Amino acid sequence: MNDRKRIIVDCLQYCNYSESIFRDLIAGGVTAIHVTIAYHEDFAEMVQNITQWNTWFVQFPDLIFHGRDAGDVRRAQAEGRTAVFFGFQNSSPIEDDIGLIEICHTLGVRFMQLSYNNQSLLAAGCYESDDAGITRMGREVIGEMNRLGMVVDMSHSGDRSTIEAIEISERPIAITHANPRSWHSVARNKPDHVLKALGQSGGMLGFSLYPYHLKGSSDCTLEGFCEMVARTAELIGVDAIGIGSDLCQDQPASVVEWMRRGKWTKETPTVSQGFPPQPSWFRSNRDFGNIADGLREVGFSEEEVDQILGLNWLRFFEVSFDPRRASHEPATRHLPPSDNEGRITTDAGRSVRW
Amino acid sequence: MNDRKRIIVDCLQYCNYSESIFRDLIAGGVTAIHVTIAYHEDFAEMVQNITQWNTWFVQFPDLIFHGRDAGDVRRAQAEGRTAVFFGFQNSSPIEDDIGLIEICHTLGVRFMQLSYNNQSLLAAGCYESDDAGITRMGREVIGEMNRLGMVVDMSHSGDRSTIEAIEISERPIAITHANPRSWHSVARNKPDHVLKALGQSGGMLGFSLYPYHLKGSSDCTLEGFCEMVARTAELIGVDAIGIGSDLCQDQPASVVEWMRRGKWTKETPTVSQGFPPQPSWFRSNRDFGNIADGLREVGFSEEEVDQILGLNWLRFFEVSFDPRRASHEPATRHLPPSDNEGRITTDAGRSVRW
Repeated sequence: MNDRKRIIVDCLQYCNYSESIFRDLIAGGVTAIHVTIAYHEDFAEMVQNITQWNTWFVQFPDLIFHGRDAGDVRRAQAEGRTAVFFGFQNSSPIEDDIGLIEICHTLGVRFMQLSYNNQSLLAAGCYESDDAGITRMGREVIGEMNRLGMVVDMSHSGDRSTIEAIEISERPIAITHANPRSWHSVARNKPDHVLKALGQSGGMLGFSLYPYHLKGSSDCTLEGFCEMVARTAELIGVDAIGIGSDLCQDQPASVVEWMRRGKWTKETPTVSQGFPPQPSWFRSNRDFGNIADGLREVGFSEEEVDQILGLNWLRFFEVSFDPRRASHEPATRHLPPSDNEGRITTDAGRSVRW
Repeated sequence: MNDRKRIIVDCLQYCNYSESIFRDLIAGGVTAIHVTIAYHEDFAEMVQNITQWNTWFVQFPDLIFHGRDAGDVRRAQAEGRTAVFFGFQNSSPIEDDIGLIEICHTLGVRFMQLSYNNQSLLAAGCYESDDAGITRMGREVIGEMNRLGMVVDMSHSGDRSTIEAIEISERPIAITHANPRSWHSVARNKPDHVLKALGQSGGMLGFSLYPYHLKGSSDCTLEGFCEMVARTAELIGVDAIGIGSDLCQDQPASVVEWMRRGKWTKETPTVSQGFPPQPSWFRSNRDFGNIADGLREVGFSEEEVDQILGLNWLRFFEVSFDPRRASHEPATRHLPPSDNEGRITTDAGRSVRW
């Protein structure tokens, strides 16, 4: 690694957070993380999870703070802290109530998956045998998320639902943590036609480091991973890719059981193996330098490494988190400038569909 | 009324809001209102009340918007709209959970009464026969409200609890809607020693226009009301007074029954008379001009009328709503400048205990 202060954004992780992990973030130079606030929680349970983060923000103000907009990424970089962005991996916290989306956005939630493995009120999950696409309520919810500035995340959704979300959403969407199915064929990875549609719409893919999403699982090599990144860049463009490590450091085996079973089944799981071991080259938030080295090895330029490790997500945050301006409202303080066609030119000079 | 655009702040009302009342606010030149979001609601029920306001903010963006800080009062004045500030008349929405205070502050709640008529987990209500003062949890909650920037409101609390809240709170507190008991002797009005302690601590009293708080009830004259204001200004200072009308326009009789009974009694109420008629000179948000006229009649200067009708609350908002700076945190973007002793000098040039 060189000494230059790089912006590093990990757009999905769910560690068992502690002072030790917060210190890893600082030591690893991680500027911003998107953390999961809810998998199966209802609204009240989700609020309790936010109060836990609020307690950490008071306890460790020199390490972390609550990130709410793209400016907070630059603030974190300037102050040597890590900005923590909130997201849901499921729509359970909004229950059946579209009004709760704005409540959640006000509480700082910036990402929501429309479904998690199973059918939700909004979309199919990636493990359903049949995917009927975005539901009636799902269309309403996407519109409301677009209005408020909450990113539609389709990481655990079905392929048809994902394609439809890309088409319906007026803002670019994200697949925060998944890899190409053409590299490693599991339901949680995404087929090329979905990834292409994502890239063409201004959306973002975050590459997962979760072993079950990797070719060779825990034995996946850094070189193999980075070659996959290079092929994906050729497929959907180097602007459309970043990291969403899915790092679940220090979580007990009970957590992965709960992720899978939630409250929807009483089936006794087969003997749980807990979380699989991470690849040797990515075990904690201190290891992003290894990925940077690997990306350079497979031929990415220094600028492209910067893009993949953080600047692409930063550009995406810039167009994703601000509430939309209503036509009758006076100009707000938050929106980036847009041209006459409603396109927004980001700091990176790229025009993104709004 | 003269043509000059006065800042008018009504620091407590609970109307049955509608487009008609929002248009009254604009026609009456009301810059900001503090509205009640909860009387007896638990957290989830309170959130539903906020979603109702969020719907109104979307429906009537040219009339109202959600006020969060003192700057929003000036923004409302500049844009000819009304800023709506949220508050609770009870601590029921935080249930027994101190973590919910920050959640509520994030949702925009800027005032909370520690009790409503009855004993709460935090303080005694004004109708309890014995007042044992601020509870153990009450002390914790006041500290957390001080940290976040949520005003302690003691309008419906007992006298001893109110005195103790003034002493314990490191920020000035408010009695948003009550009158002097020496003028009209009911439990909801406040004795002189409480009002003096309030004024000496930098706190604010909002005069109520609710008939049961007025000498002569619905027949109270404008002159009688304004003479009471003048005597109170002599008692606690013209800097410490404003309006908190307690206007409950268009509410059905069932609402006042619910306010009184909540969920704490199964007693059948005596035949309800519903809300009493308002005095002829204050029936809606269009009538603040009458109060301005009345205040001038009893000898207040134009500058003092401005203070009482809005500028005193604006100054109070300026020192009340911003989160406190933690000693280890970098300077925030929100706090007004403070001198070396932690005093904050407001726009009005007055030094307020912090």
